[in-house]
Amino acid sequence: MAPVARQFKLAARPVGMPKESDFSLEEIPVPAPADGQVLVKTSYLSVDPYMRGRITGVRSYADPVNIGDVMVGGAVGQVVESHHSGFAAGDFVLGYWGWQEQAAVDGKTLLKLNPNLAPISTALGVLGMPGMTAYFGFLEICKPQPGEVVVVSGAAGAVGSLVGQIAKIKGCRVVGIAGTDEKVHWLVNDLGFDAAFNYKTATDYTAKLKEVCPSGIDCYFDNVGGAITDSVFPLLNVFGRVSVCGQISMYNLEKPEPGPRLLPYTLVKQLKVEGFIVTRWQSRWGEGIAQMAQWLKEGKIQHREDIVEGFENTAKAFIGMLQGENTGKMLVKV
Amino acid sequence: MAPVARQFKLAARPVGMPKESDFSLEEIPVPAPADGQVLVKTSYLSVDPYMRGRITGVRSYADPVNIGDVMVGGAVGQVVESHHSGFAAGDFVLGYWGWQEQAAVDGKTLLKLNPNLAPISTALGVLGMPGMTAYFGFLEICKPQPGEVVVVSGAAGAVGSLVGQIAKIKGCRVVGIAGTDEKVHWLVNDLGFDAAFNYKTATDYTAKLKEVCPSGIDCYFDNVGGAITDSVFPLLNVFGRVSVCGQISMYNLEKPEPGPRLLPYTLVKQLKVEGFIVTRWQSRWGEGIAQMAQWLKEGKIQHREDIVEGFENTAKAFIGMLQGENTGKMLVKV
Repeated sequence: MAPVARQFKLAARPVGMPKESDFSLEEIPVPAPADGQVLVKTSYLSVDPYMRGRITGVRSYADPVNIGDVMVGGAVGQVVESHHSGFAAGDFVLGYWGWQEQAAVDGKTLLKLNPNLAPISTALGVLGMPGMTAYFGFLEICKPQPGEVVVVSGAAGAVGSLVGQIAKIKGCRVVGIAGTDEKVHWLVNDLGFDAAFNYKTATDYTAKLKEVCPSGIDCYFDNVGGAITDSVFPLLNVFGRVSVCGQISMYNLEKPEPGPRLLPYTLVKQLKVEGFIVTRWQSRWGEGIAQMAQWLKEGKIQHREDIVEGFENTAKAFIGMLQGENTGKMLVKV
Repeated sequence: MAPVARQFKLAARPVGMPKESDFSLEEIPVPAPADGQVLVKTSYLSVDPYMRGRITGVRSYADPVNIGDVMVGGAVGQVVESHHSGFAAGDFVLGYWGWQEQAAVDGKTLLKLNPNLAPISTALGVLGMPGMTAYFGFLEICKPQPGEVVVVSGAAGAVGSLVGQIAKIKGCRVVGIAGTDEKVHWLVNDLGFDAAFNYKTATDYTAKLKEVCPSGIDCYFDNVGGAITDSVFPLLNVFGRVSVCGQISMYNLEKPEPGPRLLPYTLVKQLKVEGFIVTRWQSRWGEGIAQMAQWLKEGKIQHREDIVEGFENTAKAFIGMLQGENTGKMLVKV
């Protein structure tokens, strides 16, 4: 019998919050790499909020995953067999082969990792896409100044937890919003946030925000949207900046919910509100990774990986991440 | 009997659309200018959308007008008597003395006008605040590129009609949204807009916008907010820019209405949405006025003044402007 490998395919377009049955776990023969390809064995898979958008079937900034397609996503792994001059068996690589135990991947889409510089899993987190999302998405759009007040929603996630720490490095006062008391404790006691609160137990976001931001809010890094964001806008100061990174509170709604109109605040407070996809700064990732690595080395940035063991648990991990079960970067260890 | 002059005071905080009875027309003795002041006789008064915000009693970017206060606003007039070395009787001046037939005004708050360079009324319109709002608010925030598609709401107003013409000068394709067929005709046939439609007779804004903007929208200059703006957002192209100048559709609502959430579009299309108050570019008005005057002279910009005669009709003119009765800049000739 030929050796087999498992993969997750999209089985159904999720309605509302995805279910495990929206994904099918299948076995295929281990693929043979063609010329220019390498066979990689997955070490870690990433599950990220953006993937929810890819499986809706609506083209936004990237092509949707269709029913029957292997799920997309970043992964790190080790080269088993190489038909590409740039890689040799044993090399560790970062790529975008999705939810597969093994895959034949074009060498030109892979990045070689040096496992002696940093654990390879960091290429999916603090030194990868989420790290660059935090670094560029916050610094380039919010342009934070020392002494300013920064609010981060989804603050205990892979991106938010880094944004808050970068804001502290830049001399800001930082307030995090997260969904469990444990996360709130971690933000304040381990990561150095000046304040944080649990939106699931807060009864009045506006009152809570006024309490922790008595002089208003200068920068808002938004991962969640919805009611939390609605409460932030009226408290933004003149010339406030809003970096729109995610709107996870809305990704699983079966029908969009209306909300208060935010443009009147944008007008009278002269706000700048900007959305981004991190790939727009792709040409500058080297700069971002070097700076994040330096801060990590100096102990100025901490990062946490929330690791689910076992390839077969990838869909479950993805759903858990959408429900806010993770603290820090959610990964699947294969 | 001492000579008298009339003024309008705020009599009541309007609920919803202002009524004439929210203002009281009063007679006072003509004031005597103190040292440093000049006595001015008003030639033209400006009525502008921003004034609606000033009479709500809520401090936004400027202090509110209180009950019993003279209504604020820009005006041009002629000096009757000067106790300020910078002005002599007969000089024409621009100032901010509000809805008064005559006023004693600090000389340092006045700007001398040269009536030989341009009609003095233009200092309240194309060469004044509305002109600078269009010039800086569009160019600085939208940064339009040749060939881009620009949509302007409130397109036949003092600001919108100039924005569209500036966009044409910059090589854009320009679509205007206005509230009467006459305005639409003026935009397309006189001002050179590429297309325009009447939102009061259009039944489906989205369908109409798709028809006139088949390749999407790159820049949106928003004077109105509300349902029109809701229809524009989904059609904005990647890296689209939105300049939030006004939200007039909401100024007279007794209770804010909810609307569709717009941040998801801001995210996936990487939009930049920025609100502004024109005073932020005050230090550069010289540059803006020189450029607008040049375009006027070259015939590249047309402007229209919608003039109501008689000081006693100022409140009526203001209400009419809020209801969209004006085409171009609404002025009261005293």
